[in-house]
Order: sequence, then C-alpha cells, then structure tokens
Amino acid sequence: MTEVADRTTAAAPAASPEDLETVQPAVDVAALGELLLGQWAVIRRTARELAGRPEVHKIEGLTHTEHRERVFSQLKYLVDNNAVHRAFPTRLGGSDDHGGNIAGFEELVTADPSLQIKAGVQWGLFGSAVMHLGTQEHHDKWLPGIMNLDIPGCFAMTETGHGSDVASIATTASYDEARQEFVINTPFRAAWKDYIGNAAKDGLAAVVFAQLITKNVNHGVHAFYVELRDPDTKAFLPGIGGEDDGIKGGLNGIDNGRLHFTGVRVPRTHLLNRYGNVAPDGTYSSSIESPGRRFFTMLGTLVQGRVSLDGAAVAASKLALKTAIQYATERRQFNASSSTDEEVLLDYQRHQRRLFTRLATTYAAGFAHDQLLQKFDDVFSGAHDTDADRQDLETLAAALKPLSTWHALDTLQECREACGGAGFLIENRFASLRADLDVYATFEGDNTVLLQLVAKRLLADYAKEFRNADFGVLARYVVEQAADVALNRTGLRQVAQFVADTGSVQKAALALRDEEGQRTLLTDRVQSMVAEVGSALKGANKLPQHQAAALFNQHQDELIDAAQAHAELLQWEAFTEALGKVTDSGTKQVLTWLRDLFGLSLIEKHLSWYLMNGRLSMQRGRTAGTYINRLLAKIRPHALDLVDAFGYGPEHLRAAIASGAEATRQDEARGYFQTLRANGSAPADEKTLLALKGPRSR
Amino acid sequence: MTEVADRTTAAAPAASPEDLETVQPAVDVAALGELLLGQWAVIRRTARELAGRPEVHKIEGLTHTEHRERVFSQLKYLVDNNAVHRAFPTRLGGSDDHGGNIAGFEELVTADPSLQIKAGVQWGLFGSAVMHLGTQEHHDKWLPGIMNLDIPGCFAMTETGHGSDVASIATTASYDEARQEFVINTPFRAAWKDYIGNAAKDGLAAVVFAQLITKNVNHGVHAFYVELRDPDTKAFLPGIGGEDDGIKGGLNGIDNGRLHFTGVRVPRTHLLNRYGNVAPDGTYSSSIESPGRRFFTMLGTLVQGRVSLDGAAVAASKLALKTAIQYATERRQFNASSSTDEEVLLDYQRHQRRLFTRLATTYAAGFAHDQLLQKFDDVFSGAHDTDADRQDLETLAAALKPLSTWHALDTLQECREACGGAGFLIENRFASLRADLDVYATFEGDNTVLLQLVAKRLLADYAKEFRNADFGVLARYVVEQAADVALNRTGLRQVAQFVADTGSVQKAALALRDEEGQRTLLTDRVQSMVAEVGSALKGANKLPQHQAAALFNQHQDELIDAAQAHAELLQWEAFTEALGKVTDSGTKQVLTWLRDLFGLSLIEKHLSWYLMNGRLSMQRGRTAGTYINRLLAKIRPHALDLVDAFGYGPEHLRAAIASGAEATRQDEARGYFQTLRANGSAPADEKTLLALKGPRSR
Repeated sequence: MTEVADRTTAAAPAASPEDLETVQPAVDVAALGELLLGQWAVIRRTARELAGRPEVHKIEGLTHTEHRERVFSQLKYLVDNNAVHRAFPTRLGGSDDHGGNIAGFEELVTADPSLQIKAGVQWGLFGSAVMHLGTQEHHDKWLPGIMNLDIPGCFAMTETGHGSDVASIATTASYDEARQEFVINTPFRAAWKDYIGNAAKDGLAAVVFAQLITKNVNHGVHAFYVELRDPDTKAFLPGIGGEDDGIKGGLNGIDNGRLHFTGVRVPRTHLLNRYGNVAPDGTYSSSIESPGRRFFTMLGTLVQGRVSLDGAAVAASKLALKTAIQYATERRQFNASSSTDEEVLLDYQRHQRRLFTRLATTYAAGFAHDQLLQKFDDVFSGAHDTDADRQDLETLAAALKPLSTWHALDTLQECREACGGAGFLIENRFASLRADLDVYATFEGDNTVLLQLVAKRLLADYAKEFRNADFGVLARYVVEQAADVALNRTGLRQVAQFVADTGSVQKAALALRDEEGQRTLLTDRVQSMVAEVGSALKGANKLPQHQAAALFNQHQDELIDAAQAHAELLQWEAFTEALGKVTDSGTKQVLTWLRDLFGLSLIEKHLSWYLMNGRLSMQRGRTAGTYINRLLAKIRPHALDLVDAFGYGPEHLRAAIASGAEATRQDEARGYFQTLRANGSAPADEKTLLALKGPRSR
Repeated sequence: MTEVADRTTAAAPAASPEDLETVQPAVDVAALGELLLGQWAVIRRTARELAGRPEVHKIEGLTHTEHRERVFSQLKYLVDNNAVHRAFPTRLGGSDDHGGNIAGFEELVTADPSLQIKAGVQWGLFGSAVMHLGTQEHHDKWLPGIMNLDIPGCFAMTETGHGSDVASIATTASYDEARQEFVINTPFRAAWKDYIGNAAKDGLAAVVFAQLITKNVNHGVHAFYVELRDPDTKAFLPGIGGEDDGIKGGLNGIDNGRLHFTGVRVPRTHLLNRYGNVAPDGTYSSSIESPGRRFFTMLGTLVQGRVSLDGAAVAASKLALKTAIQYATERRQFNASSSTDEEVLLDYQRHQRRLFTRLATTYAAGFAHDQLLQKFDDVFSGAHDTDADRQDLETLAAALKPLSTWHALDTLQECREACGGAGFLIENRFASLRADLDVYATFEGDNTVLLQLVAKRLLADYAKEFRNADFGVLARYVVEQAADVALNRTGLRQVAQFVADTGSVQKAALALRDEEGQRTLLTDRVQSMVAEVGSALKGANKLPQHQAAALFNQHQDELIDAAQAHAELLQWEAFTEALGKVTDSGTKQVLTWLRDLFGLSLIEKHLSWYLMNGRLSMQRGRTAGTYINRLLAKIRPHALDLVDAFGYGPEHLRAAIASGAEATRQDEARGYFQTLRANGSAPADEKTLLALKGPRSR
C-alpha cells in the first residue's frame, strides 16, 4: 500500500545519526489493536459493533426534550440487543460478568455519551444499588423490571446542599413501628435530591439515600426503594415533588432533576438491607458494627461508576486523537499553491508536541484503565475480595478517574484547536464530545475531592510505615526498586526502605531515557512529597480539630499535587508493564518511544521540583526538552499507525475531516495549479515581476 | 453592612505575624470599578445598560434555527438603539470613535456572544471592510444600508483550504477589459469560502477576497463587493452557491456557511480600491508599491477583530469569576450539620489557588487590554498612525489576544468545576459561555499562529539590535531597567544593553516579592529566550529554503514559548502601570498583592527555566510556592470586593448561584439543625452512642 509507504517516508525534521542507527521499525497495527482491546476483547468488539449502528447515534441539534425522548427509546434498543445485563445475576438473565459489563458499557460513549450515562443511571446506579445493597427478595421483586426497563429509576443520593459529602445528606427515613413503615422526609431546600438522572421525566422509582432513624437513633445513610410516579399518568405520587434541572452544558439526552419528599411512607421491607436491617419492632442490626466502615462498604459497591468513567474518558480521547492526527497528515498550510512537496500540519514541531504528548498520555491512561478494570473484576467476581482489595480498588479508581477525565477534556480541546475552524463544527464532533464529557470531571466524585482521598491513603500508608521513625531525618527516602506487579496493580507502591540522600536517585538522573531512570525519578517524587507533607502534618491528630484543619489546609495544595504525582506514576507503571506484553520488536520500539515521551513529559512538567530538590542537575534538566523533541520526530512516521490501532471505524468516528476529504481537496487543488503551470495559463505574479525588475523597485 | 464585616473577618488560614503588622486594608470598590471601566467608561456604561436588557439576552435551548432568527432580530434592536455605529463616519450618522466603538462592542458579550459576533460580522468586518478598503463612492453607496441593516453582509475571506494563510487563498477576480467587469471564480473545492458568518442565511452581499488578476498578472489579494442573494426571494444570484456550516460548538445564533462563485461578474467599480485600483483599460495601480506591504496594510485595517476579542474574553472571565467567587463565599461542604461556624469553599487553600490566580490574571489581562485599546484608538483616530505604530498595534494584538482568549476558556472551565454539578447547569452560564467563546482561540487569527507572528517580530528586533554583534557571547543579557511607558504600550520592550552575567538578575532574585525583582526575572527570560533562538537561527536566511524551514521547525516550540513569555510580561507591565493610577492606599495594597500573585504565578509556572538557567537558586525557587500561599490568604478577605469592582449586575450575571440563593439555603439548613438541638428532638447518633460504650465496641 502506498499509504503505508507514505507514512514511513514522511519527512520528519532532520534526524540525528543516532536516530537512524537501526532500520525504521514498523508497528504491527493489528496485534497492537488486540493488545489495546485487552482482556474483554470479545465483549468490546460486540459493543463496538452495536455502538456503530445509526439507531444509537447522537443526532446533533435536537432540543433537549427531543434528545431525551430519543435516548429513552435507545435504552429499549439496548435491552432488545442484550447490551446491558452482563453484570446482573445469571438466574435473572444476566451473566454475573462485572468486568465485561463495564468494558461493554464504556464503548457506548462513541455512540452518544448521553446514552451511555443514561444507561449507567438505569443499570449501573439504580439497578446496581438494588443488586448490591438489596437482598434476594429485592432482586426477585425489582431487578427483572429494572433490567427490561419496565421500571426506569433514579439513584437519588446527591442533594443540592451536599455534593461529594454523602455522609452529611439531610433526607431522613424515620421508622414508624406502629405501621412498620419508613417515613421519608426532606427537611429543607438544601436537602432536595439534585442532578438526579431520570428524575425530571422518566423515573418511576428511585433508590433514595437517607439517614435511617429508628428508636430515636440515627444509624447513618441507608438506601430505600421508593416509588416516585404513577406508571400510567407519570404524575408524582403523593408527598413527592420535584423540578427539572433543565438544560446542561452537555448530556442533554438525560433528564436530570430534583426530588423532595414530604412524609412519604414506604414499607419496612423497602430498606435495601444487605448491610443494615430494621426488625419489625424497630431494632436496628448490621453485619458491620462500625458505622463508618458500614457507610464506606455501602458506598464502595458503587465504585463501578468511577471505573467506567475512566474507561469512557480514554475512549473519547482516542476518538479525538484519531481524527486530529488523520487530518494533520493531510492538511497543508501556508504553501499549498507551491509546486514542491510541502509539509503537512503534522510535520510541524509544535503540532507534534500538542498531539503526541496527548497520544502518549492516552496510551498510558488506557493501560492503567485495564489494570483498574481487572482489579474491579477481581473484587466484584469475588476472586480477590478482601477488605484490603476493596480499599485498593477505591484508591486506584480515585487516583485514575481524575487524571483520565481531565485528560479527555484537555485532549478534545487541543484536538479541536489543532483542527482550527473545522474543529469547531459539530460535524467533526470534538465540541460535542467535549461538552458531554465536561461533567465527568465532577460527577461520581469531584476530581479534586477524589485526589484528596488518594492523598489521605498515601499519608496513612506513610504513617503506618514510619510510626516509630524519627521524622526529622526523613527529608528524603528512595524507591523500593523491586517491581512488584501485584502491588503496582493495587495502586500504591510500597512506601519503603529509605536510603542515603546520595543513593540511586542521583545515579538515575544520569539516564533520563532509561526506564529505571524514569521510574526512579517519578517514584522518588511521590515518596518525597508524601514524606514532606507527612512530616509537616505529624501530630495534627493531637491538635484541637480547628487547628488541625487549619494545618491541613495550609498543605492542601501540596497534598493534592502528591496524589496527582502518585496517579501519574501508576499510569507510567501500567504503560511500562504493557510493554512487556509486546512481542513484535518494531511495535515494541515505537511504543517504548511513546512511553519515554510520556515519562519525559511528566518529568518536564515537574522539572522545577526535580531541580529544586536536587534530583536533577541544571545541565541534565535542559536535556529533557531536547530529548522530547527528538522523540516527537521519531514517533512522527508511526503516528497514524498508533491511532489506527485504536480500532475505531468511520461508524464510530463520524467526523467529516477523518474521512480523507481533506486529502482529496488538497489533491484537487494541487492538480489545478499543476495544470495551469503545464499549459502556461497561470498569470504571472506581481512579486516575481518586481523581483525581475531589480531590488530598487521592490 | 454586615456583609462587609463578614468579608473582612472571614477566617483565612493562620496569618503570620508579619501579615498582621498593619491594619487590614480595605478596597474602595467604587473607585476601583471606575479604574476598571477605563477611558471609555461612559460608553461602557451605556453598552452595559443595553446588554442588561432581556431583549438582547440569550435564550438557552433554542434550536440553532430559532437562535439565528432571534439574533438577527436583535441586530435590528441594536440599530434602533444606536449601539453599533460609533466607528462609522460622522457624516453618515456615526461618530468616528474607534476606541469607543470597540469598548461598547465588547460589553455585548454578556448579553449573548452570538449577538456580539454577529454584530461584529456585520459592522466590524463587512462594514469595516467597505469603510477601510473602499473609497468615498463605496461609502456613500453601501454604508448607509450596512449601518441600518438593509444590507446584511458577509466578510468572505477564509477558504476551506486556507485558514490563517490568507495570502494563499485561491478565489480569483479576473478583469475583463471588454466588459469592464471582474469575474469572480472558485477554482476548486478547497477554495470555497468557509465559516463565513451571514453566509448560510442572512447575507445579501459580501466583501469577497480574491486574487486580483489583470493583464495576466496576479496582483495579490484584494477585496470586492459582491451581491449574493436576491433581496426578495433570498435565493442565491446566478453563479453563486453555498452550503450551511450547520451546528457549531457554540455561537449558534450565527449562520456560518460556505460560498462559491462560478463566473460571477461584478462591475469594475466594485473593487474596494483604496489601496489598489484597476483602470478601465485594465491597468493596475497602487499607492503601495510593494505587494507584501500592500497586503499587510489591507489586512491591518482588520486588527479590530483581535482587539475586540481580547476585551470580550476579559469580560467573560470577569463574569465567571464573580459568580464562582460569590458562590464560594456562601457554599459550605463536609460540615454543614455541625454546630460550629465552618469554613466556606473559599477558605480552602486549593480553592483559593484555583480562583485567585485566575482573578489576578484577569486583572492583568484587563489592564493590558486597556493599553491595546488605547493603541488601537491612537492609530485609527490618526493621532499616532505611523507605519511603526501600525506594526506595534499588530504585534500587541497578536500577543494579547491568544493569552486572553485561552485564559477565558481556562477560567470558565475552572469556575464551572469549582461550582461542581451546579456549574454544569446552563442556568449558571459557565458552560454556555465556554461553548460560545471556544472558537475565540482560533478565529480572527489562530492563537498559535499569532504567537508565531509575535516571535517573528521579536526575532527581527533582536537581529536589528545585534546585527553586528558577535553572537557567541550573547548567551545572556539583561533588561533595560528604565521604565519606558511609551515603549511598553506599543508592545515590545526594547531589546537593549547586555550586561555581565552576574549583574542585576542575580541580585533581583533575592527579592521575588519586589516589583523590580519580578520585572527583572520576567524581562530577562523573554530576552534570553529570544537571544537563544536568535542565535540558533543565525544564518538561516542564507540556507536553501527547505533547510531553513527545517531549522526553524526545530525551534518552533521555543519560539512560541518566547512569544508567550513576552505577552505575559506585557500583561504584568500593564498591571504594574495601572497600580500607579490607584490613589486609595487600601485598594493599592490589595491590588499590589494581586499583581504580586500574578507575577509569582508566572515565575512559578516557568520555575524550571529560572532554575536551569541559574536565575534563581534552588532555595529561592522553593520560596515561590510558599509566598503564593501567603498571598492567597492575604487576598481572601478582599476577594468579593475584587469581583464586585467588575461592576456587573444580576442582569449581566444571570446565574442562579450568583444570586445569594446558596446562602439562603445554608441558613435554612443551619436553622433547622439548631432548632432540633434546641428542642431536644434531634435523634442520637449511632457513632456517638458507640463511643460512649467504650472503644471495644467500636
């Protein structure tokens, strides 16, 4: 294929002799594509085929009312096509496949993010809550109707006054012994349920989270199954009210709304009582004695939302990069009428930097997501389901979801800008996807709040490790070099043996491009940052609450930065681990460059830290940018292969400029000018004539 | 007012004794507001009053067809309210006020960015082209109809195949001596005019840019007045075709579209001939002999688009920050049911960092815009209109527009995320404004391309300065310390005397917080970066074109970074200059902190450069973050004053969470819990009961 030849010979800026020491490697696109599909490749292929059908595609320009109608009807299409039941019990028609369910779900984002999230509300949140927080009686009673969409429902947790702080929600469910009913109540406006999908229009029922009060004791947040609307008239049932959240920045196929409850009575058996029960006489009991642990166990069953957003964000980034890189290999600028073979956009250094650094991050985020999904499946299948496993899963999801969702927004925007005015047209989809994915940064856990959860875990591990150590001497300590795959996957690299200041870090600094050099630098930074904050916060738990909070607040920024550094390290480790699975040498070489680009970009981003803390010399620091520029040139000939390996077809991309139309236009234009020149009908150029007249007349 | 008292006493994280050495300063909000309104305060007030009227507000959720209809009718409203004629000749009903015209235009962004840009298309581009490129005959013939909207029109410059590269457009206008007509032709698909406002529906005429060919010589790009549609049927006239660009990522009140021409004939007199004319016999003449200079002169008349986008971007940033900071002073999280006076969001260090750094940049961008607008008015009023003035204006606009438009997108997004789910609702406007302003980053000059123009100018100045110097010794040279206001305003700080390596830079590094220290660091970085690239590119003009391009490309990234550093310096200088105009000491103190925050944030952002290049020591570098955190705490009590000074009322903000509704909700919730506790009806907490039972049962 000439196309392949063109790619490999596309002129990159002058390569140094060293770059040319080996024959140009080639990427085995098909094999790389398989690697990227990962463990649930079969399900992903099935889901992609479905997501490629026009029936589930977003139609741009609908009003939000029309879009809602369309998406609701598409949910039925998903049911009819067996696309959404994989996680449910086999005995009810599901397949008890938790990892596969998320894998398939993630692929829906290419059809319409509204459809994806609406399906997530119905089966991933509403249905999952009944399944994970309820018991068999609840499953038998409600899951069939939830699965087949007879009961569209809501997951009514968030309140106007409480976003990320679920423990403080103010809706109450008070047990009435006399009538063996719970009475659901909304005490004030801030306690209205808000941003609830399916609440404005479609929801017939809801899982409502409320403070369970019985015998005048508040046992904390529990979930209740509550019917909302008359199935025939769709009118709210007595005591229930609400309003429409209206139009949003995106995801307008979903009818988010508000709900409030005034003395709404539900039978005692509507408490989803897997982790906490109330006997007919009002006695509370739970298999988990600690209210705190019970709360986190109940919420923990909902981690799949974060897991799936992580995957969907990666998928959207891949779509954008494929379109933008395809266009950049075709588009010429500033030279199109000249007779020489000019550069395309992708030959410009800045353009490469804009797109390839994000391509590298997308690969890293994708491999990290594979590990997260595996961990999720291990826990939810019961294969590895200890308390520690669940905590690791929570932490890993809390670390990766912020990075991947922010990355998706950044990538969609950069790709849109890299395509100029064409990028702004909805026909090229960047703006549409960006608008829909915007809220991924704050729902299912605000990204900034999630990173603070990660930081808390890092600090706890740090404190455990050094409980008896003298904090004064802990200014610096270094990486546990042994690559412990299991540990990496669970999320936290062991905070371990600390060695002398002048140990392996400085040595590693001599080899920015080596895997070990990158690992050491990235790991050392996480551990040093945690140690530094840990040391500063030492003894905070003995201070009065107000002072402790103030001390914590003075280090909040550093804490969040440390959590982010940790998450970046996890992505880098996942990318590096994936390299070990690549057998084709050409593919491995190109992917190694891409991993190096990711690692070097992280080091460049945090270069001031490495310099200020003596981890890199001034001279060494200056080589980072140069080496990145060389990597860009090396990756250039393989860029199309790397995005083709994502495996998305035109039915998923659906972008006018990903179709080759630009190349056709460019060829037509060049042909026109060639013909003019050939038959001598081109007008002379005033500039040329002036030049002939000599310099004085210019 | 208790509100004022609340603000000043709001608990900021523990201030150091030094911070408290003086009495807390107070901001004179009214006086600061006047300063921010700037030179055209009267016009800005008038325009704001208009922009606050419901008649011109965006209605969310309209289809793009409905939105187009509404905006077109709003254009008539603007005409009827004398809002858009300030730049036109007094003799035709305008007031020859170029600066005032832009000032008023910028304020329209708060009503609906679509309305602003549609007005910009009609009067700022189409009308301006007739005015600046045409001669009196053209003015008399067409300006009245353009001004009163009898002739809605297009500015048909950009082609599908050529975005930023106007010189290469392929549409031709060939002179036919026999009939004394120009024949407009579109030779191929890539030469279709594209993204043209008013083209899809409303435009009856257009200024079409095309290569002027007469007597078989191409004289380069010229502008032609072409009628497009039958005024009655709205059908395209013979030879003209086009299509709708469809839905866009935003600005859907504007009917962007494509146009193409097949043998379309216009009278010879339809050439807008101020800078180039064709006599009846086909002889070409121009007052500007050099085709290159002629081209840039013609395009230069259109700089006002960039100037006005710069100002509109600042205005949108102000709206977003007012809403987000207002909300953050009301919203409590994670503690709302406790009895103590908890922190609001704005007391969190990270929240302060997210919002205050952007507040500081918004002030800087606003002051820089004032200087740009002054320069624009100086040139267009004729007060200072030399070639050098025009070049400075072009460079200044090219430097500031990228920074302010990117900053607006970043600020709108950060504010939206800082308000969580509420930020995503259209009722709070962040998402709507962000979608509409997205394209500001690439239209009227792609930001990346504009920064390269700035870099080119910096390199040219550098070469001029050091034409005969030995480049080998120019590794470093230092700032011209004399503050030359005129020079600053024109855009380029003189690249001047270079001194020994160990001169003032290192001394200045000892005083990060001093004005001179910041200036020296920021200026030195620009000059050093330019010198470094200049040195690397030396002799490029003697290389064959292909090699020169490759060499340039290898330094493209550094060049763009240098241009950005230059623009950042200009913003910092403008902020500093504005401080000199503040007489109230409290206001001056707070604004100085804000300026310092801006300066320190820039230095922190580029800290690795300062460290790698020996401008800051490791130890000094580490103080930047600490000092920034202290500035955040100092600014905290004044944050509301600083956004109130922007002067936008509820009729401009139109955000549900900027209304005080959150404070009302919080008060209601707190009152509820206080009553429960007071009358003893609050249920006991399981956690508390467990704690009473002793540690074993936890």
